[in-house]
Amino acid sequence: MTDGQSIKADLEKIRAGRPLVHNITNYVVMNTTANALLALGASPVMAHAVEEVEEMAGLAAALVLNIGTLSGPWIEAMKIAARAARKKGIPIILDPVGAGATRFRTAVALELLAAARPAIVRGNASEIRALAAAGGETRGVESRHGAEEALEAARELAARYGSIISISGAVDLIVGTERTARVRNGHPMMARVTGMGCAASALTGALLAVNPLPLRAAAHAMAVMGIAGEMAAERSIGPGSLQVNFLDALYALNENDIQSRLRMEWI
Amino acid sequence: MTDGQSIKADLEKIRAGRPLVHNITNYVVMNTTANALLALGASPVMAHAVEEVEEMAGLAAALVLNIGTLSGPWIEAMKIAARAARKKGIPIILDPVGAGATRFRTAVALELLAAARPAIVRGNASEIRALAAAGGETRGVESRHGAEEALEAARELAARYGSIISISGAVDLIVGTERTARVRNGHPMMARVTGMGCAASALTGALLAVNPLPLRAAAHAMAVMGIAGEMAAERSIGPGSLQVNFLDALYALNENDIQSRLRMEWI
Amino acid sequence: MTDGQSIKADLEKIRAGRPLVHNITNYVVMNTTANALLALGASPVMAHAVEEVEEMAGLAAALVLNIGTLSGPWIEAMKIAARAARKKGIPIILDPVGAGATRFRTAVALELLAAARPAIVRGNASEIRALAAAGGETRGVESRHGAEEALEAARELAARYGSIISISGAVDLIVGTERTARVRNGHPMMARVTGMGCAASALTGALLAVNPLPLRAAAHAMAVMGIAGEMAAERSIGPGSLQVNFLDALYALNENDIQSRLRMEWI
Repeated sequence: MTDGQSIKADLEKIRAGRPLVHNITNYVVMNTTANALLALGASPVMAHAVEEVEEMAGLAAALVLNIGTLSGPWIEAMKIAARAARKKGIPIILDPVGAGATRFRTAVALELLAAARPAIVRGNASEIRALAAAGGETRGVESRHGAEEALEAARELAARYGSIISISGAVDLIVGTERTARVRNGHPMMARVTGMGCAASALTGALLAVNPLPLRAAAHAMAVMGIAGEMAAERSIGPGSLQVNFLDALYALNENDIQSRLRMEWI
Repeated sequence: MTDGQSIKADLEKIRAGRPLVHNITNYVVMNTTANALLALGASPVMAHAVEEVEEMAGLAAALVLNIGTLSGPWIEAMKIAARAARKKGIPIILDPVGAGATRFRTAVALELLAAARPAIVRGNASEIRALAAAGGETRGVESRHGAEEALEAARELAARYGSIISISGAVDLIVGTERTARVRNGHPMMARVTGMGCAASALTGALLAVNPLPLRAAAHAMAVMGIAGEMAAERSIGPGSLQVNFLDALYALNENDIQSRLRMEWI
Repeated sequence: MTDGQSIKADLEKIRAGRPLVHNITNYVVMNTTANALLALGASPVMAHAVEEVEEMAGLAAALVLNIGTLSGPWIEAMKIAARAARKKGIPIILDPVGAGATRFRTAVALELLAAARPAIVRGNASEIRALAAAGGETRGVESRHGAEEALEAARELAARYGSIISISGAVDLIVGTERTARVRNGHPMMARVTGMGCAASALTGALLAVNPLPLRAAAHAMAVMGIAGEMAAERSIGPGSLQVNFLDALYALNENDIQSRLRMEWI
């Protein structure tokens, strides 16, 4: 099976099975990530109350933790949900938004990394470098670095935690302990829409819900993001229309789009 | 007056009077429900601080309670606001998002139902069944059932609480103790946009602000949702454009659209 | 340098330097204000945890405080962030959303005004009047008054707190102790999109990050909002498309748009 065929098979499973993806995520992107999951064919649920996260996480096919606008009670909820997910074998994705920007974020991200043992960590290069202590110069929630500059940091994290490290950037790198995928899809205008990284993490959850191989699931998610993003950008004159067209592209994405556009390689 | 004329009269009242609809709702949909209310012609306000909800609810023409991303302090705020609204005779709409998915949500929804005595409960079939204990198999926040399968549950709830039960689905059912309306407007793609159900609850608030008959207000709201949704879907290629076109359709909705498209019947 | 040239120079600085604007803002508009800042060329960050706001505010080029959906912990975070910003000389913008609607909001807005000593207060006429105690009849979060009716209130506030008072409305007034700017750009349909006022406050933060003169920064921000808004409205059939086109217009805004459309005068 080629990479394209494998992505297509995962997409079909998502659209047929509508896996429930439980997100404990940030206020800024809740709407857009829920819409990205729905457009792709998955079923999003957002729930963060300590009273219900254990039960909700147990119902889900994947759990996505995103620290974009974290505060005390949310961290507590993330830990409870992660514990429930681990007990049931439900895979976890961690998005360490802004790690490196403040000591608090870096500390919480590391704490969740150790407690949740996520199958996949999806972040930008600055965040991944911050987590590996290879450098902590995140600027707000944006990256100052290309993905390649975080490759060593990612390898270190992958070895230390057993997680796949998915680094988004102009070129995406998906780093495992043995293999690494490079995805060259996408469009620069995507960086001008808030929550594209968070949507990538949520879609990674949808892919991981149907594909048991985290390295594959993470790479497929970045390919889907990139292909839908470049399809959208071709029809857009700015970030407003890009955001709309991105959801339409996720909804319409078909085998032909994948086969003709996919630029993924294994290194 | 035909149903169409009655809906048109309500719309004119909303556009002329701009009734204030106070929403204590979930993080995912705050933006889209505020925009749906504005597009229709109403004035949304979102406020959840226990320090101010009593005063804010007292200023409103309708109060919408939505438990989509609930947590302790929000429940407390909903109760205070409901008490203030009841004291002043301001009608309440309850959207029991995800009731049946977790024990916590079901319990909170039932608690609010008993405390707020809402004029209208607006939910999907799974949520309504869960509230009536006719079945609790909600999956995340989506419904596994068609509205018709919740008819008995709705009749039971309507009798027990004196509320109108408005069930959204491919076909909507609006159930009172004596009469039931069926609305066949809408489009399947609406289910691929997050918050469409929550927008329905918010618009139900706007209609109830100008129409003192809850059964009428609830049915009119579902008709407005469905007509605007199908108008939007005809111009859309996916859920991204649907969301945009839906707001434009609410804004433009006129007598001719209503008369030519309305598919409402009383049973 | 004409006003248009001065605005153009500020825009170029934003696009080249991508200043970090730290927002502690409301749930309804977080997504749209982040997108407005990104579309213009700035770097938004949203962070509200008391554990990190001091550090985050210290990294920013401007701090925007918006009380749209306030509650206790957020007020505390705003005060901590404001203190950190003042210590480092980082300018503050306050958006007193809904001041006058409830006693709580008015009190919190006045408290933040005194504690943060914002360089700029950006609100609608009802909010500004409420803060000056010239009248407290806000209706939800909308204004019952034109900007001109808040001119005296604004002058009083400007004198009392040393802040520039930026009043949005059909015509915007930007009031300093010595001079006042009037901006006649914009389009009535903008009032039908939620968060346009909040976006104005966020963009004011971006302008203030590159222009040390608060009166100039505030006036430039309202001109940019108004010009992008009218460019968007010309391509829109309703508030849904307006919201999308507004972001595209911010992204594309160029010298020619500014020169041909700007309607700013000093009085």
